Amino acid sequence: MHASTSGSAGISTRGDLAVVLLSGGLDSATLLAIARQEGYVCHALSFDYGQTHSAELAAARRVAAHCDVRHRILTIPIGSLGGSALTDPSIPVPDQGGEGIPVTYVPARNTVFLALALAWAEVLKARAVFIGVNALDYSGYPDCRPEFVAAFQELANLATRQAVEGAPVEIHAPLVNMTKAEIIKRGTELGVDYSNTVSCYRADSAGRACARCDACRFRAQGFSQAGVMDPTHYRA
Amino acid sequence: MHASTSGSAGISTRGDLAVVLLSGGLDSATLLAIARQEGYVCHALSFDYGQTHSAELAAARRVAAHCDVRHRILTIPIGSLGGSALTDPSIPVPDQGGEGIPVTYVPARNTVFLALALAWAEVLKARAVFIGVNALDYSGYPDCRPEFVAAFQELANLATRQAVEGAPVEIHAPLVNMTKAEIIKRGTELGVDYSNTVSCYRADSAGRACARCDACRFRAQGFSQAGVMDPTHYRA
Repeated sequence: MHASTSGSAGISTRGDLAVVLLSGGLDSATLLAIARQEGYVCHALSFDYGQTHSAELAAARRVAAHCDVRHRILTIPIGSLGGSALTDPSIPVPDQGGEGIPVTYVPARNTVFLALALAWAEVLKARAVFIGVNALDYSGYPDCRPEFVAAFQELANLATRQAVEGAPVEIHAPLVNMTKAEIIKRGTELGVDYSNTVSCYRADSAGRACARCDACRFRAQGFSQAGVMDPTHYRA
Repeated sequence: MHASTSGSAGISTRGDLAVVLLSGGLDSATLLAIARQEGYVCHALSFDYGQTHSAELAAARRVAAHCDVRHRILTIPIGSLGGSALTDPSIPVPDQGGEGIPVTYVPARNTVFLALALAWAEVLKARAVFIGVNALDYSGYPDCRPEFVAAFQELANLATRQAVEGAPVEIHAPLVNMTKAEIIKRGTELGVDYSNTVSCYRADSAGRACARCDACRFRAQGFSQAGVMDPTHYRA
């Protein structure tokens, strides 16, 4: 895993390809800007997985278009497996997550996302996969921890043709130890237009946020702490 | 990873659930029989991933029905990513694979399959995932090696709610070090009806085999070495 945004292992030879997981939220928009700034030719990858907050896919399209990068949206059936408030309308998203792993956790989601990103990276002969996991603000998600990303790197070191040939895909998680405010500051320096992004778990079809769920609260707090104007569209 | 079929770690408490990856081939039909014999309540999982040899999904349905187990087929988009003779009709399946990783290798396929099996296992609160990888006959596939399965176990130990709660899903690969003949002997003891299975990479829509591709040759050799009558349906 390459968690640093500045270490030499994270610097690409200009023109190397990267697959960047793009949800349409604040974190992944910043991630894409970081990967581009490091010199990668980025291929953005989003998933239609039955998320009830489908406004995030529209946001992902806006972010990719704004950066003029190739963007694929793959439809995957993890929502049909159930087990999460983000994919099952009968499980309400609470205002606050409370103790332990939140009901918004989607079983094995980042494992599935990274597996498919690895597959595309292998086909593209890409050097890296970027994932915008963040351990600080969402410490309840098991698959957002640095040790999870490191374990996926170990798997990628064995899983593919590229690995056997001595050049496994590198898994980059540059946001993993950043606070929300640090992410927003970095993205702002890199010219990210956060008005294109949607973080709310209960966003309406126009992408307007509820202002009350965990994702909204972390986001608003991040803008406030970063001293950056919050461009979020809230419902009246 | 639990590669043994008899070690204590592999013995379930009767009634534990398992997700069993079922391709419709000889190996996974044997795998399902082994998991059932170990006392697991099995949930079979197959993937429609754009494989050109779709007869294997019909075979998977027959195998699951024969064992009277729950069976899900998930449609996943790895075929659309390209890069394999098994998903791209413009890349012919050769009679023999030759040196190195065969063109029938599908990029990161087993990583994706295991990720989705892990997701379903988590939703079901299953104890184990069974995968029928085999390192001996298909040594060219990077994601059929024991070290790959062990790395996925390390990932599963971190990835899920179950893992955080101290009971990560166990990844079982009981066939990994068995020869094809050993697999056939074991399945025959367990009552597997191999006439339901299809191994051929170029099977026609009725499931009849070509007799010439690597998969057909390994299968025929296996029956011959096991001294078991080969029930494969070949094209005239």
